[in-house]
Amino acid sequence: MASDDFHVYDTTLRDGMQQEGLSPSVADKLAIARHLDGLAVGFIEGGWPGANPKDTEFFKRAQTELDLKHAQLAAFGMTRRSGVKAADDPLVAALRESGAPIVTIVAKAHPRHVDLALKTDLRENLEMWRDTVTHLVAEGRRVFVDAEHFFDGYLLDREYALECVRTAVEAGASLVALCDTNGGMLPNQIGDAVADVIATTSARVGIHCHDDSGCAVANSLAAIDAGATHVQGAANGYGERTGNANLFTVVANLQLKKGRKVVPDEALAEMTRIAHAISEVTNVVPYSKQPYVGFSAFAHKAGIHASALKADPDLYQHIDPAVVGNDMRVLVSEMAGRSNIELKGRQLGYDLSADRDAVARITERVKELESRGHSFEAADASFELLLCSELEGPQSTEFFTVETWRVIVEQTADGRHVSEATVKIHAKGERIIATGEGNGPVNALDTALRQALGQLYPDLARLELVDYKVRILEGDHGTASRTRVLIETGNGEDNWSTIGVEENIVAASWTAIVDAVTYGLLRAQR
Amino acid sequence: MASDDFHVYDTTLRDGMQQEGLSPSVADKLAIARHLDGLAVGFIEGGWPGANPKDTEFFKRAQTELDLKHAQLAAFGMTRRSGVKAADDPLVAALRESGAPIVTIVAKAHPRHVDLALKTDLRENLEMWRDTVTHLVAEGRRVFVDAEHFFDGYLLDREYALECVRTAVEAGASLVALCDTNGGMLPNQIGDAVADVIATTSARVGIHCHDDSGCAVANSLAAIDAGATHVQGAANGYGERTGNANLFTVVANLQLKKGRKVVPDEALAEMTRIAHAISEVTNVVPYSKQPYVGFSAFAHKAGIHASALKADPDLYQHIDPAVVGNDMRVLVSEMAGRSNIELKGRQLGYDLSADRDAVARITERVKELESRGHSFEAADASFELLLCSELEGPQSTEFFTVETWRVIVEQTADGRHVSEATVKIHAKGERIIATGEGNGPVNALDTALRQALGQLYPDLARLELVDYKVRILEGDHGTASRTRVLIETGNGEDNWSTIGVEENIVAASWTAIVDAVTYGLLRAQR
Repeated sequence: MASDDFHVYDTTLRDGMQQEGLSPSVADKLAIARHLDGLAVGFIEGGWPGANPKDTEFFKRAQTELDLKHAQLAAFGMTRRSGVKAADDPLVAALRESGAPIVTIVAKAHPRHVDLALKTDLRENLEMWRDTVTHLVAEGRRVFVDAEHFFDGYLLDREYALECVRTAVEAGASLVALCDTNGGMLPNQIGDAVADVIATTSARVGIHCHDDSGCAVANSLAAIDAGATHVQGAANGYGERTGNANLFTVVANLQLKKGRKVVPDEALAEMTRIAHAISEVTNVVPYSKQPYVGFSAFAHKAGIHASALKADPDLYQHIDPAVVGNDMRVLVSEMAGRSNIELKGRQLGYDLSADRDAVARITERVKELESRGHSFEAADASFELLLCSELEGPQSTEFFTVETWRVIVEQTADGRHVSEATVKIHAKGERIIATGEGNGPVNALDTALRQALGQLYPDLARLELVDYKVRILEGDHGTASRTRVLIETGNGEDNWSTIGVEENIVAASWTAIVDAVTYGLLRAQR
Repeated sequence: MASDDFHVYDTTLRDGMQQEGLSPSVADKLAIARHLDGLAVGFIEGGWPGANPKDTEFFKRAQTELDLKHAQLAAFGMTRRSGVKAADDPLVAALRESGAPIVTIVAKAHPRHVDLALKTDLRENLEMWRDTVTHLVAEGRRVFVDAEHFFDGYLLDREYALECVRTAVEAGASLVALCDTNGGMLPNQIGDAVADVIATTSARVGIHCHDDSGCAVANSLAAIDAGATHVQGAANGYGERTGNANLFTVVANLQLKKGRKVVPDEALAEMTRIAHAISEVTNVVPYSKQPYVGFSAFAHKAGIHASALKADPDLYQHIDPAVVGNDMRVLVSEMAGRSNIELKGRQLGYDLSADRDAVARITERVKELESRGHSFEAADASFELLLCSELEGPQSTEFFTVETWRVIVEQTADGRHVSEATVKIHAKGERIIATGEGNGPVNALDTALRQALGQLYPDLARLELVDYKVRILEGDHGTASRTRVLIETGNGEDNWSTIGVEENIVAASWTAIVDAVTYGLLRAQR
């Protein structure tokens, strides 16, 4: 179990799930909890038992199905209702009976919220804090309090906000987490208020931030600098509006920038994998620019950097990406020089350092293609085919040749759309004609080509078109604009990206499909 | 023109374009510059003339095609090479001759980068700073200096870093922008270093941050708190790796949280629109959780908040979203959006304030279409057709009906691509069949449709397809993904945008073409 000196408190399963579009099943929530435990967070807030059946079931199933190695489970809920004893409030009972060793009570610290949302008076609100905490502590639970809208309340009525904190401490709460619920604070405001609370109350202070001013991470750090010893956040920054503080970024900053060992190093090295695994469960496309764990977080494009990068990668990255389980990536682009090509080749497993001629040839080829609209940085597989063809000869990547293809797309009299493609190809000495249908011309062509090659290469049945992107390049005043198509293809294990650039959008798609299928065949062969 | 006291310096077109996957055309860059000028930023860094032909062309075309109302254009480039006079360096000459009134020189302030990347010594590096700045100032340019890797360099060798800054000032630079090039700093480190530079040199200090520790916005603010009076950033936080400081978030924080009027209030109210318009140009899916301007930035999941939210929305949002042109969205309420529709109608010349039923009907229709992937933000003409059809009846926008259409695209045995479309339509009591060819299926359909209508409506001959954009919209849980096509059409005087959303890319294009032609006919009729 994690040390109690400093708390990494995860609220992905409660506050994080307020994000637009997120609505995980109980099984999803259990899976996420296991991933978070793999990161060795100290606490996992599982939800609000009693408030919705899904969360009640989560806590029930957690008792038998979750075998947490590091984290303790926390149940979240509200103070008792106004005018009712905590012991008699059914929502408080649900918390008591959730089986979670920790109960986190949200309580109002902002006079106008007490008035308008709770519809009660300031004195009764304090009684609700006191009574709820006292009751749950007497029942043997460890109680944390989330002081909702604390910072806005503090700016409006400092005395009342401090009185709320003191009340929680007197009633036996282990700590009070100060919440920037609307997320609009800036770091100095947070730091000043936290320092004041610590100086004027005896509370252990925690911090809970949202990203509405783009400062959730910095705000969390400012609170910790000012003495907070408990930080709340959500995986991948999930949460309502702009999201909660990104717990991964906060943890990495604390560990790698502030020298605080808040999780074991081995757990930190799993962070990138865990971030992506959680995205798989939530079905939210990972944000490629996410600090530390994003797909692009250590991706370098500028040509001027590449030569020095080769000499010393640490000159161009703020940390060694391996410590968070991420990887440096060098992007091939029109700014590319030879060093980029060499580095990129090395990443793909081709040692080009000895063959200066090949590097020169490939660099020329890339530059020529990019000047005509190619962009290899997003098409690793097409780049690898080019590399392979230059190094091992064109026949190394030629599994078939194309005679002709044709697509017909039509809207029939009843308004239906029909797409049909026919391809004529040559492979292993045979001439093959195949026809495929699809929900669009690209899908139809892809189906037809795989149909044609299917009997010769049964592996192709596993391929799937995962993503399709189109960009029209330079389309001024009727000059022939070019169409750039990027296709992502998967085989159930890995994905790869290919590119096609042609005037004609269907022809560009065809080129990318041919590369995608060729790359699939090359992989299967190896 | 913006005041010189505080600089909002945009680097979207230079550093922002280092983002993975971004590769805009010159026309795209000009369009983005116009949007940024609409936000009234003080400076727009257009690129690196001389280093790549695209940027050279941008500066050339900017002189005749950009009519900036607020911003000044800056050309970015490096100090002269080691061992060459600035006056003789062709890259310095390209800056001098770019036509930009501002030249921003990037210079190294980190000893190890001088050694490994520049491969020169510390004294010569200072000479490169001095000579390049002196030369460009003597040539009448205003010179800013970006001190690359400043903060890492400062921590390694404070004296040398300060010497670099002093050298730039002595040589006549207007300011030195301190760069956290690797993006790994935290706010207190930035604040301390900036305060030290200001205290020990006479430099005007700027700040340039990246988001690798998730603190780019807070770091920029920390520098400004410490005395920096020039802030660099990129639209939507575009940039290499995790991105540059998000200029929109920084500007909104300065204006709304720090009480600094860095752009006119009217410009700030355009920020959300501009952020989305730039996404359309770059074809990068907007990040819905982006502070201030994101689609979800003021979206509330209903629940405990609902009644209090109705009583006083300000209790649950850190600012009034209207001041940045955004809108509160309550995810279960039917109230959202009406004011938008009314406002948009007014912009197009329709006063809807008296007709509440029509507003409700149109809001419903827009919501339904947007839930299926439409985005009227970038398709004013399609929105106006919808408005017109709801207010004046469907016949007001129905100039023809479509029976069927068909496109054939093929690659012939000699490798040529042929696209041919046939449309069957009814107009003015006639049934018309026409066939058109094109360099792709969309062009062929457009040609065929205008061919069919040409005799009845000769005005159509002037129409031209100016731009075509495609985005594939994520399908939910196995449902087929949809394709969104945006088409821009011109008649030689004005351009208008239309949209089509269908599973089939050709069908989506057809819908957008039909709207484009219909709108052209509607205009001609008026």
